[in-house]
Amino acid sequence: MRIPNADDVRAAAARIAGVAVRTPLLECAVLGQLAGGRIFIKPEMLQRTGSFKFRGAWNRLSQLSGSERRAGVVAWSSGNHAQGVAAAAQMLGVPALIVMPSDAPRLKIERTRGFGAEIVLYDRLKEMREEIGARIAAERGAVIVRPYDDPDIVAGQGTVGLEIVEDAAQFGIGLDAVLVPAGGGGLAAGTVLALGAAMPDAKVWCVEPQGFDDHARSLATGHRLGNEAGATSFCDALLAPMPGELTFAINAPRLAGGLAVSDAEVTAAMRFAFEELKLVVEPGGAVALAAVLAGRFDTKGKAVALVLSGGNADPAAFAQALGG
Amino acid sequence: MRIPNADDVRAAAARIAGVAVRTPLLECAVLGQLAGGRIFIKPEMLQRTGSFKFRGAWNRLSQLSGSERRAGVVAWSSGNHAQGVAAAAQMLGVPALIVMPSDAPRLKIERTRGFGAEIVLYDRLKEMREEIGARIAAERGAVIVRPYDDPDIVAGQGTVGLEIVEDAAQFGIGLDAVLVPAGGGGLAAGTVLALGAAMPDAKVWCVEPQGFDDHARSLATGHRLGNEAGATSFCDALLAPMPGELTFAINAPRLAGGLAVSDAEVTAAMRFAFEELKLVVEPGGAVALAAVLAGRFDTKGKAVALVLSGGNADPAAFAQALGG
Repeated sequence: MRIPNADDVRAAAARIAGVAVRTPLLECAVLGQLAGGRIFIKPEMLQRTGSFKFRGAWNRLSQLSGSERRAGVVAWSSGNHAQGVAAAAQMLGVPALIVMPSDAPRLKIERTRGFGAEIVLYDRLKEMREEIGARIAAERGAVIVRPYDDPDIVAGQGTVGLEIVEDAAQFGIGLDAVLVPAGGGGLAAGTVLALGAAMPDAKVWCVEPQGFDDHARSLATGHRLGNEAGATSFCDALLAPMPGELTFAINAPRLAGGLAVSDAEVTAAMRFAFEELKLVVEPGGAVALAAVLAGRFDTKGKAVALVLSGGNADPAAFAQALGG
Repeated sequence: MRIPNADDVRAAAARIAGVAVRTPLLECAVLGQLAGGRIFIKPEMLQRTGSFKFRGAWNRLSQLSGSERRAGVVAWSSGNHAQGVAAAAQMLGVPALIVMPSDAPRLKIERTRGFGAEIVLYDRLKEMREEIGARIAAERGAVIVRPYDDPDIVAGQGTVGLEIVEDAAQFGIGLDAVLVPAGGGGLAAGTVLALGAAMPDAKVWCVEPQGFDDHARSLATGHRLGNEAGATSFCDALLAPMPGELTFAINAPRLAGGLAVSDAEVTAAMRFAFEELKLVVEPGGAVALAAVLAGRFDTKGKAVALVLSGGNADPAAFAQALGG
């Protein structure tokens, strides 16, 4: 598989301009006081479809040929890549079929269907989504749009990092670190590519739920390691079984490392985001914020950007987090 | 009282630069589809203190003389002006005392106290906050910082309008209308001053809760009219008894008119903001969005900006709105 570079991220930025939302980089004074540094957030829940995933999906789908567009696309996703692909497909007039776990948040399934996609549900514990998706794609002659192991997807997600670089310059600062959530590692890979040459002193860390810290362990050993069976977390967006092949090839030599947070820390971060940031963050989107609030990352005297990657939380689950 | 102008708004913008958050103007595709136009939102819950009120407070307090700063400030507010004044005072090292209704949302009282202000509670139905505030200010020789009838406060709130003008230009569009929530009318007055010369074709409408549509009726008759006693609304930020004297002098010849929305429409808008915009909006901050969603304003074929003015909602009340 071709490994994308910073030029691919810039090309993706040109493709998404005027289509994706240019989300801001916001300094959070209250968070800065708590953390003893300057803390900036990149609120990707404000992105079209409610997560950064639209960026990669648009970058991939907008480059399909005419015959590929007619054949349609197949994707698998717990819900955010699903919505990104479904929305991009709808805008481009491409038929989309999405394979989703039957226990995905109802909101994500409904929203994906709302973007006009056909949904196939599967049992996350008994079936392999890749097999189901590949079989359907073969039957239909459709194009598979992978959630992270795809150069165009990685380059698209990297526009998050590119915008962070551009907006940090407007604040007149260089960042010491950028913390990004990691499931399959596509956002981390795109971000570290975008920052590489433009802001070489900024270290990129990925953040995962405890029990799903496959990136942290893989980065520490230099080999792709999977998560142990039986682990659970309510961070539904970050439950990929192991780092992607392409994404790990990018991330292994470039990321500073991985951090892990507990579900309780994520719940506290969601509540903080509600009360102080006035943003709706889903569990998987809140892990970087959770890492800072829980003191798992030293922010003293540093300028740090946190990617809040999505906000597709079920209202009932969110209301419960607020009550906790 | 001196009537401020567009130059005062520009001067205020220079004062708040680097201190206030430069909130973005975001196009909402889903809302645009529903409304049959292009809908942009100005999310002021992302502002420091969680509402636009910090803008006016900083513009006012940063101009106090040394002796005024030592004497301290007194303000009265249901909670957002309170936080704006308290936060600005804390940053400038100015003692602040805030008179707040005893039935203000607990979150607003706690947050105001958290910014280091002294709080005096009063009974909204039996006492006059202006009298209490004026008495305390006289005793202490402190400076009164009014919530809207103050040229520096109006000019500060007007930076919301100035930023809308600047960012609309980046989208390459001229706006047909801007909808802003109105309590005392300070945000509407500042906004219409900022838009006046820069975007003369954009009509500015104010939006109020039903039963508190004093602006709508006053604008229609040309005279300041109060609200009838006994009206209730959960839009705690918008319960001022009548348009301000200064603000009405600005608004009467310039605003296009007033719209009113029900509490049920506001609840639906808060839920929409949660699900689709991923933003936490408090009741008073959601009235412009409610007007569009409820079909109270014709958006067909128009480019319309909505100011979502604040997000200081009590978690419990918000959770209840989500459940509804």
